[in-house]
Amino acid sequence: MVGGGPGSFIGRVHYSSALLDGHINFVCGAFSSDPAKSKIAGKDYYLDPSRAYDSYAEMIEKETKLPEGERMDFLCIASPNHVHYGPAKLALENGFHVVSDKPLTFTTDEARSLVKLVEETGLIFAVTHAYTGYPMVKEARDMIRTGKLGKIRKVISEYPQGWLSTLLEATGQTQAAWRGDPERSGKVNSMGDIGTHALNLAEYVTGLKVTEVCADISTMVEERKLDDDGNLLVHFDNGARGIIYASQISAGEENGLTIRVYGEKGGLEWVQTEPNTLIAKWLDRPIEYIRPGNSWVSDIAQYNTRLPAGHPEGLIEAFANIYRNVATCIQHRLEGKEPPAEALDFPTVYDGLRGMQFIDTVLASAASDNKWIRFQE
Amino acid sequence: MVGGGPGSFIGRVHYSSALLDGHINFVCGAFSSDPAKSKIAGKDYYLDPSRAYDSYAEMIEKETKLPEGERMDFLCIASPNHVHYGPAKLALENGFHVVSDKPLTFTTDEARSLVKLVEETGLIFAVTHAYTGYPMVKEARDMIRTGKLGKIRKVISEYPQGWLSTLLEATGQTQAAWRGDPERSGKVNSMGDIGTHALNLAEYVTGLKVTEVCADISTMVEERKLDDDGNLLVHFDNGARGIIYASQISAGEENGLTIRVYGEKGGLEWVQTEPNTLIAKWLDRPIEYIRPGNSWVSDIAQYNTRLPAGHPEGLIEAFANIYRNVATCIQHRLEGKEPPAEALDFPTVYDGLRGMQFIDTVLASAASDNKWIRFQE
Amino acid sequence: MVGGGPGSFIGRVHYSSALLDGHINFVCGAFSSDPAKSKIAGKDYYLDPSRAYDSYAEMIEKETKLPEGERMDFLCIASPNHVHYGPAKLALENGFHVVSDKPLTFTTDEARSLVKLVEETGLIFAVTHAYTGYPMVKEARDMIRTGKLGKIRKVISEYPQGWLSTLLEATGQTQAAWRGDPERSGKVNSMGDIGTHALNLAEYVTGLKVTEVCADISTMVEERKLDDDGNLLVHFDNGARGIIYASQISAGEENGLTIRVYGEKGGLEWVQTEPNTLIAKWLDRPIEYIRPGNSWVSDIAQYNTRLPAGHPEGLIEAFANIYRNVATCIQHRLEGKEPPAEALDFPTVYDGLRGMQFIDTVLASAASDNKWIRFQE
Amino acid sequence: MVGGGPGSFIGRVHYSSALLDGHINFVCGAFSSDPAKSKIAGKDYYLDPSRAYDSYAEMIEKETKLPEGERMDFLCIASPNHVHYGPAKLALENGFHVVSDKPLTFTTDEARSLVKLVEETGLIFAVTHAYTGYPMVKEARDMIRTGKLGKIRKVISEYPQGWLSTLLEATGQTQAAWRGDPERSGKVNSMGDIGTHALNLAEYVTGLKVTEVCADISTMVEERKLDDDGNLLVHFDNGARGIIYASQISAGEENGLTIRVYGEKGGLEWVQTEPNTLIAKWLDRPIEYIRPGNSWVSDIAQYNTRLPAGHPEGLIEAFANIYRNVATCIQHRLEGKEPPAEALDFPTVYDGLRGMQFIDTVLASAASDNKWIRFQE
Repeated sequence: MVGGGPGSFIGRVHYSSALLDGHINFVCGAFSSDPAKSKIAGKDYYLDPSRAYDSYAEMIEKETKLPEGERMDFLCIASPNHVHYGPAKLALENGFHVVSDKPLTFTTDEARSLVKLVEETGLIFAVTHAYTGYPMVKEARDMIRTGKLGKIRKVISEYPQGWLSTLLEATGQTQAAWRGDPERSGKVNSMGDIGTHALNLAEYVTGLKVTEVCADISTMVEERKLDDDGNLLVHFDNGARGIIYASQISAGEENGLTIRVYGEKGGLEWVQTEPNTLIAKWLDRPIEYIRPGNSWVSDIAQYNTRLPAGHPEGLIEAFANIYRNVATCIQHRLEGKEPPAEALDFPTVYDGLRGMQFIDTVLASAASDNKWIRFQE
Repeated sequence: MVGGGPGSFIGRVHYSSALLDGHINFVCGAFSSDPAKSKIAGKDYYLDPSRAYDSYAEMIEKETKLPEGERMDFLCIASPNHVHYGPAKLALENGFHVVSDKPLTFTTDEARSLVKLVEETGLIFAVTHAYTGYPMVKEARDMIRTGKLGKIRKVISEYPQGWLSTLLEATGQTQAAWRGDPERSGKVNSMGDIGTHALNLAEYVTGLKVTEVCADISTMVEERKLDDDGNLLVHFDNGARGIIYASQISAGEENGLTIRVYGEKGGLEWVQTEPNTLIAKWLDRPIEYIRPGNSWVSDIAQYNTRLPAGHPEGLIEAFANIYRNVATCIQHRLEGKEPPAEALDFPTVYDGLRGMQFIDTVLASAASDNKWIRFQE
Repeated sequence: MVGGGPGSFIGRVHYSSALLDGHINFVCGAFSSDPAKSKIAGKDYYLDPSRAYDSYAEMIEKETKLPEGERMDFLCIASPNHVHYGPAKLALENGFHVVSDKPLTFTTDEARSLVKLVEETGLIFAVTHAYTGYPMVKEARDMIRTGKLGKIRKVISEYPQGWLSTLLEATGQTQAAWRGDPERSGKVNSMGDIGTHALNLAEYVTGLKVTEVCADISTMVEERKLDDDGNLLVHFDNGARGIIYASQISAGEENGLTIRVYGEKGGLEWVQTEPNTLIAKWLDRPIEYIRPGNSWVSDIAQYNTRLPAGHPEGLIEAFANIYRNVATCIQHRLEGKEPPAEALDFPTVYDGLRGMQFIDTVLASAASDNKWIRFQE
Repeated sequence: MVGGGPGSFIGRVHYSSALLDGHINFVCGAFSSDPAKSKIAGKDYYLDPSRAYDSYAEMIEKETKLPEGERMDFLCIASPNHVHYGPAKLALENGFHVVSDKPLTFTTDEARSLVKLVEETGLIFAVTHAYTGYPMVKEARDMIRTGKLGKIRKVISEYPQGWLSTLLEATGQTQAAWRGDPERSGKVNSMGDIGTHALNLAEYVTGLKVTEVCADISTMVEERKLDDDGNLLVHFDNGARGIIYASQISAGEENGLTIRVYGEKGGLEWVQTEPNTLIAKWLDRPIEYIRPGNSWVSDIAQYNTRLPAGHPEGLIEAFANIYRNVATCIQHRLEGKEPPAEALDFPTVYDGLRGMQFIDTVLASAASDNKWIRFQE
């Protein structure tokens, strides 16, 4: 792991998610830009102290030298945004698969260069848009894919949070501090941190691509350096229209990621805070509440469910579905076999690139007096 | 009553709402453009046959001649959009108060001329944006007014319906037929029929005014003549930003009018299909579910509640709050007294005008390649 | 109307419910045991002062003498429990139909004597167990009746309220004062006031009859004279088992009347505070949320729905369904016709008697150390 | 681990829960009464083949002989009910701590003997009544403990499931087969499998003890050998009264474990299928929805929460809270330190014994014509 040191929230999520199914051993890390902190974290993670490295460069160098079977199989990147590209590139160059947090990189050029590296090396590269790991998100995707909703006409994907309703970054709070800092977060905050999730969810669930965006982004809290709210009108490649919004100043909201999709025959609604329910609404029959673990849900939803119906799973399990799939793919490769099709269902470097292009597109629209802008592929 | 003949939905709602509290007697009507149908409706409404008129013109003429105390006190307009202006104007010119359905008129000029007439005559003119009659909508307004949310930053007002997901107007269905016909509905359908509600609700609850609009309106169902979906970015006069959308092709939705407002200190959410709950979300304490009839709700919410806590009220009761308030105002006038302040809380001809201007603004934005357009006051 | 004077909650509900559909004119009343208060109420109700009577006896006497077509058609009883039997009996004896609030009488013998009078006179006698007037309650009944759930195995009917969590009757609060007083309320409070509703709902929805009861009733608030909580195990005549409970000390609950029924194939759940949704759960497919006004609900639910899908109706509308049905029956009788079958669907004097027997059964179980007791028919 | 072989649901839950936080290494197991199956499971769990034992007896014998630091620290029992007592006893006798599934044993005498062994050896013995591991259950307990609800008056704890609505055990389904077989399940099924959870939850949350029970248990599905439904009236040691029920024939229910508690000042409601919300209802203010990860929840709830507010946790995380606490206690012991008070918060052998006594009490009431029976301590 790169990142995930003291104070990290997402590091622990990666860690627990990777361990959950027992397929993955946690063997080494470079947990902080501060070597001392990295050592402390290594102890917290019960690591062999010699494998709690001072830097990701050292880690990749030394791990590469370890014998096969002993050295790490893949790298997990759980660091702030400005430390995504470096370790990802180095890992790929040294033959390691990668699981990286999002947004993929700092710039779109970096993202493109990672795509190129992945294509050249054939290595596995997952990006943790973990919300698509929920079984009911996969059920939604499956329902749309198999035509149950008919042609899609309207998509609303929104991600309201309230935690940045005040100038939290001024208090030194770890999460807020780096996300609010252009040096570590990048050109955007809300649009990158959660807007990319809203886009990824919309495109994953519908199988459509956003083609045009009209963006109204703003910074509502005084003295904040980056955006904390953005409202977008969007067009999709099949003619559907919709709305994407992301907000960190929606006071009182937790992680209210919600998607609603309407087709000719019915609509779907899924809310991240109650992820074990997918609501289906129909023109010709009652509303349905579809829940995982039941015999009538799709194979792909079942494949991503651990517990029988009525025992809720949460974000860690959704996250763990990415790790389990990546582990399955790596294991099959090690054994010289093709992985099962279900295991290929995780967000990749292409989703990561698309997230970066989304940020560019939003900024271009905002810079041009909020005009409609073609999605910048 | 004008309109409300056989097949009318909204006529029955006006009727029951007017009767509910016992302050209003239903005395006469011109229920249809077809005199025979008007007679039939008169019988259904248990009217004196001589007061089921052939036309609104005849009604106003004959009622004017009846002795005071016997003749109608006010006119209720429940007809399709193209028969709003005519009876409203004639009623005002003959000294009758008016309760009219929305959109107020066919054109903004007509709306302006009604405003002028109201100002000249001093008569009461209510417009049935009835959703603002719900006690929990009034509670929301009160909470914002008294600063409980701090400065408002974001407003999302949406009205999804699914009933026009197919070309229902081609089947002859009464409601769809006139709404889908530019001759009877006007220049827009979804934007006028329900978009104006979404605007009215947003402005009523927040006390803010929309100042700029960027509109993306569409007709999703083939062969349909008017819009059936529209997504709008909006700016408010205090700097808040937001989204308004109205849709008749959100398959599976009933009347999902929903408003969410976020201020510096907290957020509010209200959903029309479960109208007896107002959800308040806070930065510093648990989410609250506020329900009418309890001692801790505002005076204005209590004033608009008939039943003790836990006995739900619905749309007819919300509608009836407008009628009760209008009746209270008229009665006080008849008695030469000032009505209580609470009774003045109903949508007026100015709200009606604003709805017409909203339609103009949306169309102007759509006509200019979806650019931002100043609200056309 | 008998009762419904100043401070009455249920009087206003009867009044609005009777007026709602325009079939009923409100013509006279004896609103209070205090003639002065009765006069005041008469004015509030916009009555001809000569028909705001000093007592129900005077009212029935004088109305009887009025010419047919002018005199009242039926009597509505909205007074406290100890003034149910008297006016009901007198009305029946003088040829008036009756709509009475529940519990039907003070004693079961009185209830039996009313049943006898109804059978002798052939008059209509409705009892306002109004919760069965909700369209989704009727939908539940219809689903069970038509076998959609298979044989019923388990029924849980509960009515939690919290309003008597303190000794509210000691404060003089009108509702609490008479309900807490054995002289006006009878031998029980919670079991009669709301327990009978829970029983009626269970039997109405399932079509089953309770045959045995094991009751644990209590008075949780010190110095209270009557029961404020009761938990009952019950057996039904088809072998189903279940639970009925009623509570006035469930602090924070409003009117949480809830029924859950489970059969061989599925289950149903309905909650009074969100009455426009019936939740159906199935062994072989997703949970359904069934809502009124949609084409797929039963005819009887549609018959009892006024508004299109998505416009909520509340308690007054449920109550009004009883009045509309009674009015329809009376009108048909006046015209010498058979009423439509749908209009016969309202709770009658037999339901009222059953409520009284329920109270007896509960008390008998409680008196015998909470043993199982046969339902005392 | 004992049990948890192919087809086991709960074995996987124990496994993932133990791994989740990285404190526990999974080192050995006797996964099945069939040694071949145990070997297969060992491979599935990535174990050293030499530590996938043929029987729990062999495992305990051989592990005991391994050097300290290498041998297992504690035993997890995830086998059917009839294989709880044997391994638990042997483990304790050989100095191993135990985490056992529930019901604790087959007979109450066995349970008592385990209690004795625990008291003699001083070893840690956890029982996985895992629902009490949810942070919002701990929040409820904390609110009651600190007096926020005042004196508790009423408790309703219910656990409806629908999965045994048909004679599933006749199909050979693994879970149903052993649970429906008196040889493997014991004297009861529903009362032991889920009734004990409902009891444990009620007593954990309220801090009260059930003192008297009046039970109505039944077998609704023909040819079934054990109970599949039971309704209980209960009294608590502070005078509170309530209802406990457990059902496996509530068709369409998943794992609807729900607790409602009412005190003098307010009520609480928690539902297992949406475990991240605790609903608090009050006499004097709006309903509150309390959710984990927020600054205003109790320390003990925070201690048992991994993710920030709005990222749901599920059953595995609740289960993992038991494992984490047990691991913390063991680790502190190994280091000769006192564990923190928070880590002692898990269900123990005493809760297990109480579950067995509950079964006895229920059966005694049922055997005596459903009379009230003192809780059989």
